[in-house]
Amino acid sequence: MRNRCVVLKARPKGVAQEDHFAIETRELGELSKGYVRIRNRFLSVEPAMRGWLADAATYSSRIEIGDVMKALAVGHVIQSDHPDYVIGEPVTGWFGWQEIADVPPSAIERRVTETDLPLSLCLGILGMNGLTAWFGLTRVGAPRAGDVVVVSTAAGAVGSAVGQIAKMLGCRTIGIAGGPEKKRLCTDDYHYDAAIDYRAEDIDSALRALCPDGVDVYYDNTSGAISDAVMRNLAVGARVVICGTAAISSWDDWPQGPRVERHLLLKRARMQGFLMHDFNAEFPEALAQLTEWVRAGKLHYREDISHGLESCPGALARIYRGGNVGKCLIGLD
Amino acid sequence: MRNRCVVLKARPKGVAQEDHFAIETRELGELSKGYVRIRNRFLSVEPAMRGWLADAATYSSRIEIGDVMKALAVGHVIQSDHPDYVIGEPVTGWFGWQEIADVPPSAIERRVTETDLPLSLCLGILGMNGLTAWFGLTRVGAPRAGDVVVVSTAAGAVGSAVGQIAKMLGCRTIGIAGGPEKKRLCTDDYHYDAAIDYRAEDIDSALRALCPDGVDVYYDNTSGAISDAVMRNLAVGARVVICGTAAISSWDDWPQGPRVERHLLLKRARMQGFLMHDFNAEFPEALAQLTEWVRAGKLHYREDISHGLESCPGALARIYRGGNVGKCLIGLD
Repeated sequence: MRNRCVVLKARPKGVAQEDHFAIETRELGELSKGYVRIRNRFLSVEPAMRGWLADAATYSSRIEIGDVMKALAVGHVIQSDHPDYVIGEPVTGWFGWQEIADVPPSAIERRVTETDLPLSLCLGILGMNGLTAWFGLTRVGAPRAGDVVVVSTAAGAVGSAVGQIAKMLGCRTIGIAGGPEKKRLCTDDYHYDAAIDYRAEDIDSALRALCPDGVDVYYDNTSGAISDAVMRNLAVGARVVICGTAAISSWDDWPQGPRVERHLLLKRARMQGFLMHDFNAEFPEALAQLTEWVRAGKLHYREDISHGLESCPGALARIYRGGNVGKCLIGLD
Repeated sequence: MRNRCVVLKARPKGVAQEDHFAIETRELGELSKGYVRIRNRFLSVEPAMRGWLADAATYSSRIEIGDVMKALAVGHVIQSDHPDYVIGEPVTGWFGWQEIADVPPSAIERRVTETDLPLSLCLGILGMNGLTAWFGLTRVGAPRAGDVVVVSTAAGAVGSAVGQIAKMLGCRTIGIAGGPEKKRLCTDDYHYDAAIDYRAEDIDSALRALCPDGVDVYYDNTSGAISDAVMRNLAVGARVVICGTAAISSWDDWPQGPRVERHLLLKRARMQGFLMHDFNAEFPEALAQLTEWVRAGKLHYREDISHGLESCPGALARIYRGGNVGKCLIGLD
């Protein structure tokens, strides 16, 4: 049986471009003992992939040259040597950028049970994006009703969920996004109380006008100049959730920025990073809540689906250019 | 009745020098209704005074040109128009850099009841320094037994208390201080498990050798290059307590530094500022614990006492030069 897969050809400095990857055809052997064979239906493209590909050690094990690109995916079991999995079941997990994945059960994150909803959702709003939004906001941001919650990359897959969840928790929400179309998405589709187009507006002035008493929770997916402006406008007791650093093109040459210590001191504020997997034990409860909101039409999401494995190599560079609107996925037949 | 006081003559940019202040003699009128007249015995000199004198708004109201310098002090009531205070009582509070203070009861922080101990202690280990160490470490740093706790300005009035309290809570303590004498103080007097002289040693290498598994709690009084090195050596789940920024000579030209976001993300760490007065309601309990340790000889401290009001104007610049060892005080007759 032949399998086509996307492998790492050269290690990128900064964001991986199309020519850092190659598509290869490999022959699949016999299925290993205890393994499950999955035909992938959707492959995920995440901003976090930049970190997985970086030369420096990170929280995930590094991808080596010649390896199939690590990725979350969803597919159907087509062969099983494990009693827990039967042919035809939809499952999601670490199946990589490839058509067919032979994996041990430990690579499977979960069985997809919400079969009334599109299969792709378990890679976005009912997967890493939704869970990242939920745990970062509720556990790290700890918003209270009436708080002002500011979100960067506010129309993105994570940010749009953060804004909507915060709003449902009784907060006043302000989204920061790039360009008039994303700004419009923030207020029209994701129910932000207000939005700022960072390409056209001065963030400091906009924040001073929109929330003169300061920002209580800042959910940051960017780092860089957007964050610097929000930090200057924190309220006393603010919580800054560090989720991603999309605005930083490379951490290989560690970038400088205005020091944060005095903001944190004067505002008795905190900045905190987190990892979705710190909350593994609480996934079922969070997913139940997110699924309920999606079914009720209360939690909106967008998907940006390209078709075919050939779309993979350029996909990461594309999301870092801001070319996608919503969760970026690759669909396979 | 004549009163000599230290007034602000010119607003400093950065740390106030001797010539930013003037000593004036002012005539005291009748004591105002409901007020208390106090003869100061010790005046406090704090690193935080730089912030109180800065042009930018801070958490304390700004000191204006011609005002008596704001300061904590301890003294005896010499006249009282308030039923709660009687002549002869020792009290501590916001009495300013002056010989005699006429104050409303709201300026009095507390009555000094530990009269078996030196009166000056209520400005240091049993005052702002001890309380700042206690609340910052226990509430913001949240150390667990076995944690590695790193402290900057480790031999200073706050840092030395942090190190000793952390040790009593079962942590392994590493002090960072400038020069061989302060390094020796850390290990000999303040029972740090290890100390680093940042003037003579490379902090990164020293930390990697002393705590290869990383820093669990960093109690920071400095900001700047010392902090940058500690941030590179955080353990997963680390807590960074932002207490002071002694290494930054001025925030008027906001300094740059290496961005912290990626450290916080990879280590799921948090940085948090605090203010001792956020914990006002818990002062009595904390003071009882600190007093017990001081009486039992378990909590060591140093005082650096200069005599006479003439020592005030140059005192702040002196502590920013690192010229003092221990809590800096001005004694008055």
